[in-house]
Amino acid sequence: MRFALGIEYDGGPFHGWQRSSAEVPSVQGALESALSKVANAPISVTCSGRTDAGVHARCQVVHFDSEVARDTRAWLLGATTHLPREIAVAWCRLVHPEFNARFSAVRRAYRYTLLNRQTRPGFMAQYLAWELHSLDAQAMHIAAQSLVGEHDFSSFRSSQCEAPHANRLLTSIAVQRRGDLIHIDVEGNAFLHHMVRNIVGALIEVGKGRQHVSWIGELLAMRDRTQGGVTAAACGLVFIGPRYPEKWNLPEEVTTREIAVSNSNPV
Amino acid sequence: MRFALGIEYDGGPFHGWQRSSAEVPSVQGALESALSKVANAPISVTCSGRTDAGVHARCQVVHFDSEVARDTRAWLLGATTHLPREIAVAWCRLVHPEFNARFSAVRRAYRYTLLNRQTRPGFMAQYLAWELHSLDAQAMHIAAQSLVGEHDFSSFRSSQCEAPHANRLLTSIAVQRRGDLIHIDVEGNAFLHHMVRNIVGALIEVGKGRQHVSWIGELLAMRDRTQGGVTAAACGLVFIGPRYPEKWNLPEEVTTREIAVSNSNPV
Repeated sequence: MRFALGIEYDGGPFHGWQRSSAEVPSVQGALESALSKVANAPISVTCSGRTDAGVHARCQVVHFDSEVARDTRAWLLGATTHLPREIAVAWCRLVHPEFNARFSAVRRAYRYTLLNRQTRPGFMAQYLAWELHSLDAQAMHIAAQSLVGEHDFSSFRSSQCEAPHANRLLTSIAVQRRGDLIHIDVEGNAFLHHMVRNIVGALIEVGKGRQHVSWIGELLAMRDRTQGGVTAAACGLVFIGPRYPEKWNLPEEVTTREIAVSNSNPV
Repeated sequence: MRFALGIEYDGGPFHGWQRSSAEVPSVQGALESALSKVANAPISVTCSGRTDAGVHARCQVVHFDSEVARDTRAWLLGATTHLPREIAVAWCRLVHPEFNARFSAVRRAYRYTLLNRQTRPGFMAQYLAWELHSLDAQAMHIAAQSLVGEHDFSSFRSSQCEAPHANRLLTSIAVQRRGDLIHIDVEGNAFLHHMVRNIVGALIEVGKGRQHVSWIGELLAMRDRTQGGVTAAACGLVFIGPRYPEKWNLPEEVTTREIAVSNSNPV
């Protein structure tokens, strides 16, 4: 039987999603360990989108297979009991065996939040990046619009990125100021390694006035990572979650009614 | 010279706002220690509204007096440098000597947030209270409306409350569900000790269906704390901040244009 879980976590204490070795704490490692305790047998999980060290998730989706006789409530409550306090399971569903948390996802959404003022954050500091120099959020928003559509995002790709190609569909990006906070909301079919943080790093250059609004589009056209800005800090990034077609019968928060227009595969 | 500061903090590590002894960490103690280092002389502060152990603040306002030659930028940056990472100064203004952070405030706003689902929070857990039983937020909202207006709030007052009387003006209260989260936004002229948390505790009884919607109004009329519900957990409460009349020339986030209609004194 295949199950899907909605997972949330504070990425701070973890070296990212991916399990590498037993000594390095990872979200995947903690989750597989908790599920294996519930199953009393080894369980491995597949996620909708890996997150880097320090990146948070409001709704990471995973799937796993198990023939152990446990209902969804037992997985939900049992796994959460065995997880460290920075990770919780929000929901559990029995899904069709063809559902795949990674390949069935047609959209992924991220939010990046900057505190833009003279002093560092005190409240919610774990979830904010801090930018001391005054940023022009409107200029950042205008500049960001040149990224919408299907493009080769090589200029925003980490040198460690292992994806076979850099074509991604970015469906929307919005930069909004609310007082001292600047939210950058990005949605697309899939994202390259460090892609959101590299986009934010480049937008900060525009926001500071060091680069013109047209620079983001020029940078995209260069397809050259070495021309971009710095990678924005991990702590400001939250993986809001993936979206799946209605047929998978998942909770509303991860379901989309729109038909996917992408012609490229997810990462 | 008198200065006003906007302070934010994560209340988790502190035994509340008020300084009691050097051994017990308090927000006031940490702030006075940081300001005294900047001044190289003892500084004491007065706040707009004391917060209990574990309660957070998005914008606590304080005032203090100092004749030391420091500009607002020196106080802002210097104090933040000396503060623990859970506290920061957001802004500093030179104010009229008659401004008083406590007595000049005409409104105070709080937000209480409940995560209402089967499992505990993993993301943002420091800032959420958790309620496992399904709550009817609409019933809570309707019930809460009987609290609006000027009343004797003795039924929602802590037994340790030292205020001379229990009359307070509650200007608005709204209960809204957003997915698994329930926000309770309360605004009034001033609040008694534990008043918001006791209101939330009583509303939870209504949300669970253990008490009828009319019970909140009945409880208010009883003026008897022993009839109420439990005090809701501190970690879900954020002091959003006070509001002052325009004449004090403070930042927009703590300024109100409305004329105070209260005929009772702040706490």
